[in-house]
This record gives sequence, C-alpha cells and structure tokens, in this order.
Amino acid sequence: MSERKEHIFKEGDLVLLLPLTRTKKEERIVIKLKSGDILHTRFGVIKHDDIINTRVGGIVKSHLGMSFIVFPATLPDIVWNYNDFDYVTQIIYPRDWGIIITFADIKSVDKVVEIGTGSGALTAFLAFRLCKEKARLISYERDPERAKRAKKNLERLNVPKIYEIKVRDVAKEGIDEKDVDVVFIDIPEPWTVLKTVWYALKPGGRVIIYVPTYNQVEKTLRALIRNGYIDIRIKENIVRDIQPKPYAIRPELKGYYFSAFIIFARKSLVVPLWAIQDLMK
Amino acid sequence: MSERKEHIFKEGDLVLLLPLTRTKKEERIVIKLKSGDILHTRFGVIKHDDIINTRVGGIVKSHLGMSFIVFPATLPDIVWNYNDFDYVTQIIYPRDWGIIITFADIKSVDKVVEIGTGSGALTAFLAFRLCKEKARLISYERDPERAKRAKKNLERLNVPKIYEIKVRDVAKEGIDEKDVDVVFIDIPEPWTVLKTVWYALKPGGRVIIYVPTYNQVEKTLRALIRNGYIDIRIKENIVRDIQPKPYAIRPELKGYYFSAFIIFARKSLVVPLWAIQDLMK
Amino acid sequence: MSERKEHIFKEGDLVLLLPLTRTKKEERIVIKLKSGDILHTRFGVIKHDDIINTRVGGIVKSHLGMSFIVFPATLPDIVWNYNDFDYVTQIIYPRDWGIIITFADIKSVDKVVEIGTGSGALTAFLAFRLCKEKARLISYERDPERAKRAKKNLERLNVPKIYEIKVRDVAKEGIDEKDVDVVFIDIPEPWTVLKTVWYALKPGGRVIIYVPTYNQVEKTLRALIRNGYIDIRIKENIVRDIQPKPYAIRPELKGYYFSAFIIFARKSLVVPLWAIQDLMK
Amino acid sequence: MSERKEHIFKEGDLVLLLPLTRTKKEERIVIKLKSGDILHTRFGVIKHDDIINTRVGGIVKSHLGMSFIVFPATLPDIVWNYNDFDYVTQIIYPRDWGIIITFADIKSVDKVVEIGTGSGALTAFLAFRLCKEKARLISYERDPERAKRAKKNLERLNVPKIYEIKVRDVAKEGIDEKDVDVVFIDIPEPWTVLKTVWYALKPGGRVIIYVPTYNQVEKTLRALIRNGYIDIRIKENIVRDIQPKPYAIRPELKGYYFSAFIIFARKSLVVPLWAIQDLMK
Repeated sequence: MSERKEHIFKEGDLVLLLPLTRTKKEERIVIKLKSGDILHTRFGVIKHDDIINTRVGGIVKSHLGMSFIVFPATLPDIVWNYNDFDYVTQIIYPRDWGIIITFADIKSVDKVVEIGTGSGALTAFLAFRLCKEKARLISYERDPERAKRAKKNLERLNVPKIYEIKVRDVAKEGIDEKDVDVVFIDIPEPWTVLKTVWYALKPGGRVIIYVPTYNQVEKTLRALIRNGYIDIRIKENIVRDIQPKPYAIRPELKGYYFSAFIIFARKSLVVPLWAIQDLMK
Repeated sequence: MSERKEHIFKEGDLVLLLPLTRTKKEERIVIKLKSGDILHTRFGVIKHDDIINTRVGGIVKSHLGMSFIVFPATLPDIVWNYNDFDYVTQIIYPRDWGIIITFADIKSVDKVVEIGTGSGALTAFLAFRLCKEKARLISYERDPERAKRAKKNLERLNVPKIYEIKVRDVAKEGIDEKDVDVVFIDIPEPWTVLKTVWYALKPGGRVIIYVPTYNQVEKTLRALIRNGYIDIRIKENIVRDIQPKPYAIRPELKGYYFSAFIIFARKSLVVPLWAIQDLMK
Repeated sequence: MSERKEHIFKEGDLVLLLPLTRTKKEERIVIKLKSGDILHTRFGVIKHDDIINTRVGGIVKSHLGMSFIVFPATLPDIVWNYNDFDYVTQIIYPRDWGIIITFADIKSVDKVVEIGTGSGALTAFLAFRLCKEKARLISYERDPERAKRAKKNLERLNVPKIYEIKVRDVAKEGIDEKDVDVVFIDIPEPWTVLKTVWYALKPGGRVIIYVPTYNQVEKTLRALIRNGYIDIRIKENIVRDIQPKPYAIRPELKGYYFSAFIIFARKSLVVPLWAIQDLMK
Repeated sequence: MSERKEHIFKEGDLVLLLPLTRTKKEERIVIKLKSGDILHTRFGVIKHDDIINTRVGGIVKSHLGMSFIVFPATLPDIVWNYNDFDYVTQIIYPRDWGIIITFADIKSVDKVVEIGTGSGALTAFLAFRLCKEKARLISYERDPERAKRAKKNLERLNVPKIYEIKVRDVAKEGIDEKDVDVVFIDIPEPWTVLKTVWYALKPGGRVIIYVPTYNQVEKTLRALIRNGYIDIRIKENIVRDIQPKPYAIRPELKGYYFSAFIIFARKSLVVPLWAIQDLMK
C-alpha cells in the first residue's frame, strides 16, 4: 500500500517531538524540518533527515537511543515550544484566542484589522481560521523593527499568505481600510485609536481591546463611550489544566490564573444617555 | 450617497435589538426578519417591516415609543437570546467553542467530524469558521428526532451549507470518513466510540471529548490510553464577565463557573509504557 | 443510659432542619426554638415543641408526614437560611471570613476593631473565634438604625457577649481604642478612615479593607501608601461548590464567582521610597 | 515616655524582615530571634542582637547597609518563609485554613481532633484560634518520626500549648476522645477512619476531609454515605493575588490555582434513602 503524501513528513514541516519515556519535567520540542539540520536535546542528538520522508506519527531515535514520537505541531505548541518563535512582545495567550474569535464572532469570510502586531501569534491564529479567497487580515505595527520580526515569525510558522503587515502608528496616521468587520487592538494606550477605528468599522462592526490592567480598562471604557461604541462587555478567562492521570485526576496546582481583560464593543451611531451619565459618576 | 447593500437589513437577517434606555434586567432580543411579522416585547410591539430595508445600526421604535438599536446578531447572542433556537440538549457553551478550536487547532481547511450533534450550536460555530470550498464538516446524531431539530436550528441560523448531518449511532455503526483531521465527541459515553474514531483519524489526528463530570473523565482517560491515543490534556474554563461601568469596575457577582471538562488527545500508533502502567494504579 | 444535657435541644437553640426526602430545590431551614412557636414549610407545619427536649440529630415530622433531621445550625447556615437574620446591608460573605482571619492572622486573644458593622455577620464570626476572657471586639457603625438592627441580629444569633457596638462616624470622630491588633474596614470610602486607624493600631498592626470594585482598590492603595501602611497585599477568592453525587462529581454550574477585593496592610513608621514613587506613575 | 513592653522585640520572637528597597524577587525573611545568632541574606549579614530590645516596626541594617523593616511574623508568613519550619509533608495551604474553620464552624471553645498531623501547619492555625481554658485540640499522627518533627515545628512556632499530639494509626487503633465537635482528616485514605470518627463525634458533629484528587473524593463520598454521615458538601478554593501597584492593578499572572478538595459532612443516625440509592448509580 502506498502511503498518502500528506501522511509523510517533508522539509519545512513544523513538527512536535514527544519523548516516549516519562521525563521529570514534561518535554515538548517543536522544530522545523530542514535537511542536514541537527537537533540537540537533553536526551541526545536527532537528525532532521531521520524524520523527513518518514510517516506522520512514527518514531525517531536520538543517538543515545531515546525514542520520540513525531506529530505535526499545533499552533499552541508552536508558540510555546518552538525556539525560533521570536517573542517580540508578550503574546496574546492561546487561551484567549478562542474568547476573541467567539465573542467578536470572527467568521472565515471577515475583513479583520489588528492594531499592534506584536509577535504575530494572534495574527497567525486568525490567518489559519480565515478563507484565503474571501477574507482579509491587515495588521498594523508602529515599530519597524518589531514588524520585521513579526513577519519573520509568520513566515517561519508557514502561515497562509492572507495577512498583510503595515508599519504605521495608527494613533497618528489612522487606518486605510473601510467597512471593516472586526478590529482587534493590543497596544498600551488603546484609547488613542478608538476614533480612527470607529471610521474604519462597518455599522455594528466589532472592536476588541486587550489590556492587562484595571487602570487601562477604566480609561478604555470611558473612551469607548465618548467615541460612539455601545454594547460594551468585558471578560477574563481562567483556564485550568487537569492532571491527566486516571488514578489521580485533579487540577494542576500551579499555572497562569490571569492573562488580560478582554473588552468587546460595537460601533454605533447613537450612545444611550445612561452611558454618558456613567461618565460623570 | 447611495447606501451599500450590506449596510441595509433585509428579510432573513438575524438581528439583535438593544433598548436605548437602561432596563432593570438586561434585555437582548434576537429575531429573524420576516415581512409582516410582529415582535412582542415588554416595551411594546415592533413590526419587522420597520427594520427591513433600514440601515444597520439604526433605531426602531415600539408602538409604546421605546427605542431599540438594531445590529446584526452574533452567534453567541443567537444561541442565548433567539427564542426560535431550539434547545434540543444542553449546548456546548460559547465560552468553550474557543478552547476547542484553539487547542484542537481546527483550521479553516480541515475535515472535521462531530459525534453528538445535540442542538447544533458547535456545528454552527465551526461552519462559520471553515472555508466552504476546502473544508468538510460532518455531524453524527443517533436520535432522528434530535437530528431533525438540529438541522432546523442550523437552517434558522443561516449557517453556511458546509455541514452534513448523519443520523447514526456511531458506537454501533462506526464512521464513514477516513483521514479526518479532528473529531469532536459530545455524547454521555464517549468511551464507546474511541475505537472507531481512531480508524477515522489521520495519524496525529486530534480528538476532543466534552464531558461534564470527573467520573466520565476517568473512564475516558482509561479508554483513550487503551485505544491508542497519546498527548492527553484536559482543560476547564472559567470565564468571568466584568461589570462595564467605568466608575464601578468589578467582576459580576454571579455566573456560570463551570461548564465541562474538555479532553484533548492525538491518534498514535504507539502508547508509552508508562501510560499503560498508569492504568494499573 | 441518661442523655447528656448537651445532646438535647433546648429553647433558644438555633437549629437546622434538613428534609429526609430529596427535594427539587435544596431546602435548608434555620429556626430558633421557642416553645409554642410553629414553623410553616412547603411540606407542612412543624411545632417547635416537637424539637425542644429531643435528641440532637433526631427526626421531627411535619403535620403532613414529612421527616426532617435536626442539627445545631452552623453560622454559615444561619446567615444564609435563617429568616430572622436581618440583611441590613450586603454581608461579608462566609467564604471571605476565613481569608480575613487567616491573612490578617487574627488570634483568639487579639484586640479587634471593625469599622462598618453592617449586618453583623463578620462580627458574629469573630466573636465565636475569640476568647471572652482575653480578646476584645469593638464594632463601629455610623448609622444608628443599622447599629440597632445589627445588635438585634447578634442577640438572635446567640453570639458570645464579647463584642461592643459603637454608633459613630469614624471618618469624623475617630476611634477610642489604642494598641489595636487588627482593624477591619467595610465602608464605601475606606480612605477616609485610614489616618485615624493608623493611630489606633499597634506598630505592625494589621488592617484589612473589603471593597467590591477596582476603582475603590485604586483609591485605597493610594491612601494606604500616603498614610504609612506597608506590606500591602490584595486577594480575591473564588470558592466553588462541587456536586456531592458519587456517580457525578463535578463543580456546580452556577454560583457566586466574585465577592470583593480584600486588601491587607500593616502600620509602619516608614514608607519605602519606591512606594511613594508608585503614586506618581 | 517609656515604651510598652509588647512594643519591644524580645528573644524568641518570630519576626518578618522586609527590605526597604524594591528587590527583583520579593523578599520575605522570617527568623526566630536568638541572642548571638546571625542571619545571612543576599544583601549582607544581620545580627539578631540588632533587633532584640528594639521597637516593633523599626529598622535594622545589614553589614552592607541594606535596611529592613521588622514586624512580628504572621502565621502564613511563618509557614512560607521561615527556613526552620520543617516541611514534613505537603501542608494544608493557608488559603484553605479559613474555609475549614468557617464551613466546619470551628469555634474557640470546641473540642477538635485532627487525623494526620503532617507538618502541623493547620494544628498551629487552630491552636491560635482556640481558647486555652475551654477548647481541646488533639492531633493523631501514625508515623513517630513525623510526629516528632511536627512537635518540633509547633514548639518553634511558639504555638499556645493547647494541643496534644498522639502517635497512633487511627485506622487500626481508633480514637480515644468522645463527644468531639469537629474532626479534621488529612490522610491519603480517609475512608479507613470514617467509622471510628463517627463514634468519636457528637451527634451532628462535623467532619472535614482534605483530599487532593477526584478519585479520593469519589471513594470518600461513598464511605461517608455508608458510614452515617449526611449534609455532605465539597468545596474548592481559588485565591488570586492582585498586584498592589496603584497604577497597574491586575491579578498576578501566575500562582496556585488549586490546592485540594475540601469535603464537609455531619454525623447522623439516619441516612436518607436517596443517598443510599446514589451508591448504586
């Protein structure tokens, strides 16, 4: 029986290596396959060529005899475990990607603008969820150096070429796009761009703002009301990992119990009086 | 200036009505526009024809003079606030949709199988995230009556016609598809289908199991190990709403603080010895 | 064998009645036994005299034949389920009592001052944890009507007579006590009393402030730093109930997922420079 | 003005040292004052004699000129930061002490039995909350070596001499006490002692069981029902620390998000039929 092409690893694939022996600290290694390259692990050396052209889900051995199972890497594994993923800035946590796509209701055919590319993690997530033929994804980054590094990240991650990165300070120079479905904002002073975002959005268009502190939430809320956004909602997200041992099931003891406040709102032509009055309190 | 067609509500649209006056209990009303239909609210009667052919983001008034702003409805709003959405079973909560799409890394071009259509809420979510031209979405439901009601739900929700619902008891009759990227299981006894799912999946394919109790987690874990799945991870998700008043920002006091345990695993040809040993403990 | 006196219910006892049959909604009824009194329940009428002089842990029947087991009531049961407990204000939630006593390290011999008696729930909790002979517990309430109702609550709850309630606006008139170990503050504007509290505390004395919003946390933090408090810590507390069914163990779906922010600090003669600098940021 | 004796540190006091300069990692050092002793810190050496006989809340300097403020140590600080506190076993977390004292309604005059002394952390907490004259606190430990180390801990912590530690395997040899108000159980197989605990408790007496895994919860639940306990409740506790910077208030990103399941129940002479039926499901 001939193997299907998609069941065989090829050069350029991002793969996850999981040791077959239980290790003291969990090991998850992500690499990008390149003929001739070598991976150094605590358990010995692995040649990329020993993975290329082998079957997905197969075993590779280090020169010390340690076995690893090899899978295509998922995006969360890549951003956490791929050494060449460049942490330009703190990333939007994978646990929050889903909250964003769900409550901003980002569909596979939407026109989406991101302000603050950062490391490109959310850009990558969205690019994989959109349809190349119908959707658009534009990401603005003020800092040219950061933009360059984010672009490199996206290339390394084999992200579909649906995205465009623009180097621009949106607070000063605004946004080109019109009739945008969704704008995602991840910059330290989101209130500086809410006016220009309003003009870019469709009526009823959705904006999401990602801020780590309460102080920013307060400032953002006030700016949203003043700038014509309604239906404001704020969420935070605690995701717990559960220990997957059948004889000792319990939440892990330690982990991330906060990431950021995620604010959702919609562009409106009217702002209710009570919202304006809230500003005075 | 002539309005763009997409900025005008038309028959068949699902719309969200938000009262402009602050009401004691938050009001979010979702309706499907149909010429001649009438909506009865606590604040008076609204004619659908007063919305059809008007601008997105505009105002409609009830016969008692209450103003509502009208937006296209998001999917979370639809499943929570649209009276004609039929709760066939408890739905997969919107807060969990994102965890599923993220950690199972469901991409817009994937072939996805769902076992347990239920009310079709997750089916709808996925259908809006996939590309009609490239992806596939097959949902199995054992109960013909439920399947019928779920189909009706999906039609009412204007979901892209990418999905297919099959009436079948997968535990007894198996799955047709091969080389599936992702299988999502939401049935009370997920361990009964893990063998057939294994055959349907690609090597390295991802399975997600959604169960509400620890007892089910234990049984599922044991069955996963016995049936050739590895890289098992379990997550639970606490999403808190924050009160969006700029002068009184705090988490809401009361809400849903649990939905389900979400188990992730991957199809493998080998199972590590330590995992087998875990079964004996 | 003669029964021990403490194993027999007597007039004045606060007791918890639990129906022996599973009811749709959980029933927990707390009453104070009084000869001649009658309790009306959804399951029929119960005479207090059928409980007085019977054994702790025994059964009482309603006139419709419904059986209830009768236990001494715990304080959390009393504040939640005793109809004569008067909710003068929102109470300090039982789940937070423990955080307060633990992290403020309130010992059974301490001198404790409370500002804002409210309904007296925390006052009652503390009174039961202190030694009558050695500790002191003074509670200030600005509003004479509230103070009266709180006193009545404490009498109804058979709280040890260790507490003293003083009607006074501490922000204007200060505190009498000196060398206080711990001050607990539960008023809407805690920053107005932090100066007078400082003078009342021992060196190193502990203050706890209970506020529901982030906005109040910010104002309180700034006032703490300006008024000579250090070692500031803030906690919040999510307590989940787990469904106690052996065949279906899982967190309850819905509940209180926020109560308040609990701020802890200590009286100091010096404030670090960096804390002062924090005020400028 | 002569200083009050209690405002002066003396030999044997447990004190907390906080550096006055902001350090990269938070430093909290707890020591027990002993004339002649020396403390080595990353910021230089401190002589205990420079603290003894000085004022509470004052400053001490290291030989490198680093200033520390010195306070009496609280119990949570002691168990986390005192190097001579001996971690015989995993301790009951301070965040859970309060849940236990509150929902088991442990009062300052109660007779309390602990099964599983462990490191003695909860024993110490309770000893400080009880009245020496009226309450009793007996703690059973199976392992003589552990019991010895726990005793030493309690002596080091200056715990009031209200407690008694008995070396005994309760599962085999039972409990001496009768008419106990509250029994706290922290052993790996709590179901082995529930029968003997039942005999030790007063009617309506309260039992608390502390177990880290769901698997133990299930076994304990079944044993509770079979052994005559009712009003079973299970809680878990997520305490988040909030960053106390006035300009950047937010929950800390990382921390302990699980400790244990805490099970509460009461001794009863009757067990409802539905509880027995639950055992069959």
